[in-house]
Amino acid sequence: MIEKIKSYLHTHRDEHIEELMAFLRIPSISAVAQHQPDMLKCAEWTAQSLQKAGLENIDIMPTKGHPVVYADWLHAPGKPTVLIYGHYDVQPAEPLELWETPPFEPVIRDNKLFGRGSTDDKGQLLLYVKVVEAFLQTQGSLPINVKFCIEGEEEIASKHLPSFVEEHASKLQADSIILSDTQMHGPGKPALMYGLRGLAGFEITIDGANSDLHSGLFGGAVQNPIHAISKLLSSFHDEQGRVAVHGFYDRVIELSDKERESFKQVEPDENKVRTNLNVTELYGEQGFSFYEQTTSRPTLEITSVSGGFQGEGIKPIIPNRASAKIACRLVAAQVPEEIMDLVEAHIHALTLPGVTITLDRQLRGNPFITPIDEPVMLAAAEAYEETFSEWPVYTRSGGSIPIVEVLGRVLDAPVVLMGFGLPGENLHAPNEHFHLMNWDNGTETISRYWLKLAQLAATSKESN
Amino acid sequence: MIEKIKSYLHTHRDEHIEELMAFLRIPSISAVAQHQPDMLKCAEWTAQSLQKAGLENIDIMPTKGHPVVYADWLHAPGKPTVLIYGHYDVQPAEPLELWETPPFEPVIRDNKLFGRGSTDDKGQLLLYVKVVEAFLQTQGSLPINVKFCIEGEEEIASKHLPSFVEEHASKLQADSIILSDTQMHGPGKPALMYGLRGLAGFEITIDGANSDLHSGLFGGAVQNPIHAISKLLSSFHDEQGRVAVHGFYDRVIELSDKERESFKQVEPDENKVRTNLNVTELYGEQGFSFYEQTTSRPTLEITSVSGGFQGEGIKPIIPNRASAKIACRLVAAQVPEEIMDLVEAHIHALTLPGVTITLDRQLRGNPFITPIDEPVMLAAAEAYEETFSEWPVYTRSGGSIPIVEVLGRVLDAPVVLMGFGLPGENLHAPNEHFHLMNWDNGTETISRYWLKLAQLAATSKESN
Repeated sequence: MIEKIKSYLHTHRDEHIEELMAFLRIPSISAVAQHQPDMLKCAEWTAQSLQKAGLENIDIMPTKGHPVVYADWLHAPGKPTVLIYGHYDVQPAEPLELWETPPFEPVIRDNKLFGRGSTDDKGQLLLYVKVVEAFLQTQGSLPINVKFCIEGEEEIASKHLPSFVEEHASKLQADSIILSDTQMHGPGKPALMYGLRGLAGFEITIDGANSDLHSGLFGGAVQNPIHAISKLLSSFHDEQGRVAVHGFYDRVIELSDKERESFKQVEPDENKVRTNLNVTELYGEQGFSFYEQTTSRPTLEITSVSGGFQGEGIKPIIPNRASAKIACRLVAAQVPEEIMDLVEAHIHALTLPGVTITLDRQLRGNPFITPIDEPVMLAAAEAYEETFSEWPVYTRSGGSIPIVEVLGRVLDAPVVLMGFGLPGENLHAPNEHFHLMNWDNGTETISRYWLKLAQLAATSKESN
Repeated sequence: MIEKIKSYLHTHRDEHIEELMAFLRIPSISAVAQHQPDMLKCAEWTAQSLQKAGLENIDIMPTKGHPVVYADWLHAPGKPTVLIYGHYDVQPAEPLELWETPPFEPVIRDNKLFGRGSTDDKGQLLLYVKVVEAFLQTQGSLPINVKFCIEGEEEIASKHLPSFVEEHASKLQADSIILSDTQMHGPGKPALMYGLRGLAGFEITIDGANSDLHSGLFGGAVQNPIHAISKLLSSFHDEQGRVAVHGFYDRVIELSDKERESFKQVEPDENKVRTNLNVTELYGEQGFSFYEQTTSRPTLEITSVSGGFQGEGIKPIIPNRASAKIACRLVAAQVPEEIMDLVEAHIHALTLPGVTITLDRQLRGNPFITPIDEPVMLAAAEAYEETFSEWPVYTRSGGSIPIVEVLGRVLDAPVVLMGFGLPGENLHAPNEHFHLMNWDNGTETISRYWLKLAQLAATSKESN
């Protein structure tokens, strides 16, 4: 069956790429208000494209921001249902002068399709639409049930999607969630990203006297809020680079030997990292590699500090306030709110006479992980291997894509991140492109994946 | 002899106060360029006033800023020479709407003379001019040799006076230096301010990677400059509030029992200070009172700190730079340059991997002290006591008036600060005034002081 699918995709390739180029010509920049009409046009274009492929129940669903495009095909009774997530919005194209060809006039050079959105995410999203078309045109049906949820606000932090997912949870319900908005490890080297860090962000403010004080007349006799905040901030880490907040690591799921072993395939050369950053040495929690430190260990980073006169020269005052902002990156199964409770307890246990301390909780994002031995993960790995003749590497990112965790948690389903982009394809930068080699590899991998998923049992959650 | 002087001053009081009011009518605001003509007019007025009093060798001496007015009377062979320092410039008068009567239209209410410059420093300066006049008119001579050095830049940090004093050191040479630009302890309570703190000001910069880094992708594996500067800044003080820089206190001249005892007369009520500042408690070096901490102990105060994104919200980065500015207040016999050497050694002894630290030395001001048992100090105290029937209290200030130290050091002579202002006379604020009770007390005290100085031997330095 896969040969027929491949053959269809091969025969219609030019037409499909032409369709992708039409998608890329719409400057659907979600961040810029004047592109509001383009956003609507792009949502409609997406809906039509889904319909043309044979999907049903097409719906452009309003949110408080840009609409979500929904579609499904649910005629595979007893088979699993997969929710496909993607986004039709793109990053702004500036600086325009650095583009070799205009960002919204896509062209192919060296089998690479250049244009804003080509890899992030229009190109990767359309793979799924064309796989639907190929199955329906050659088999008359899909091997599984599919639902599409395509948002228009991914590049503006998916502002309204969490509430949308909560509200439409039953409509979006699925056995697994799949999305292609990440990267392969390199050409010919597939990757499954199975973990993302969460975030707890807060601000600490230390107040001293009721006004700035003359450092001559009061210096030496009152607590200086900058002294106090320096003591506090320096108390957050021990000499071994570990976070010294009591209980901070309690919920951390330690890496398995298999994970640590697999990381060796993706570990960057630490010397190269050091040289690129131009630092004398790397520095982090002892006993962990750079890759482990940045992906599978939680951190507490002070992202800003401020106190006293910020102008030129030395104004000899004792300021009446100092503040710092902190971002903790969290790993499964840490809980942002609980981490901020622990930090607050840490602060209250310190003795800092003569000042008052307040903590303002601002950001919360749960960490995300899909265990690599989940059946849907194994199936994805097999599909990759059959296409690329290479078992995928397992990666984690140190960053946060909060919507991934939201989808998994609210819909209570494993999330599979199957990237077909390549490192260096300039997402968010000028000359963004998508290597069309991975157009072909992508459609094949997805087709094979769906055939494999069809062999897995649908869970009891499935309502169809 | 003193009765004749007093009688002359009494007889001519109205005319003298009238002259002071004319002095106050000139808006000699050194900080504001448009008052340049007023500055010249005021320098000329000062010169004429000195000449009218009988002083000689009147000279309006140029500097790179506003001129210095010089005059002398050197016909007391074998007698000490005293250099009288003062300034003819004043602070800006804004906010004008808060003045009950216009700042440059002096008026007397309740025996207080209101007007910008009345207490700081025209009123206090003119005391000396009128004492010269009184001696010359009643005795035909002065009991000692006097030189006047009256600058026009005190309110703009005496920018050009240090180089002026260096250049004209032999012309200005004296056995002692006297100035009245400070305050009494209270009505009827004279004070001799015998110590001022010096200053060492510097900036510390910590550099990490060659750009800000994404806290997700690099957090946990590179040194964060804010973490490093927090460790550094928190290392400057120990748990007892002492500066923990090795050698910092080595040159500090400890307070004598006599000094500590005398401070009890001027110690503010610490509860009141705490309440005024609205802090839960005062905090400083243990074993010292508030007054001792702020005047006779050196301090290291971080006056500002900065690092990371300073806008609204949490931008999750590891910034590539953090910096702090520090002002050390120094006491005799600490040396600013040496203190900065010690801080630099302290920094280099710390282990802060993965960052580079630089220290930029910016401000230097020596501490000043005139031992309270210096003969010229004792004579001043006796003069005060004879006038006020009260021995003066000995005070120190935690602030810095660098020019006082420069005069004493370059001219190698003790400096006596004999203030006749009162607390609450609003120097630098609206409704500045000078209580005329202290016009009379001031001229009498100075007259008595000069008579006493005449009984001290001139030192070998005296060139006359």
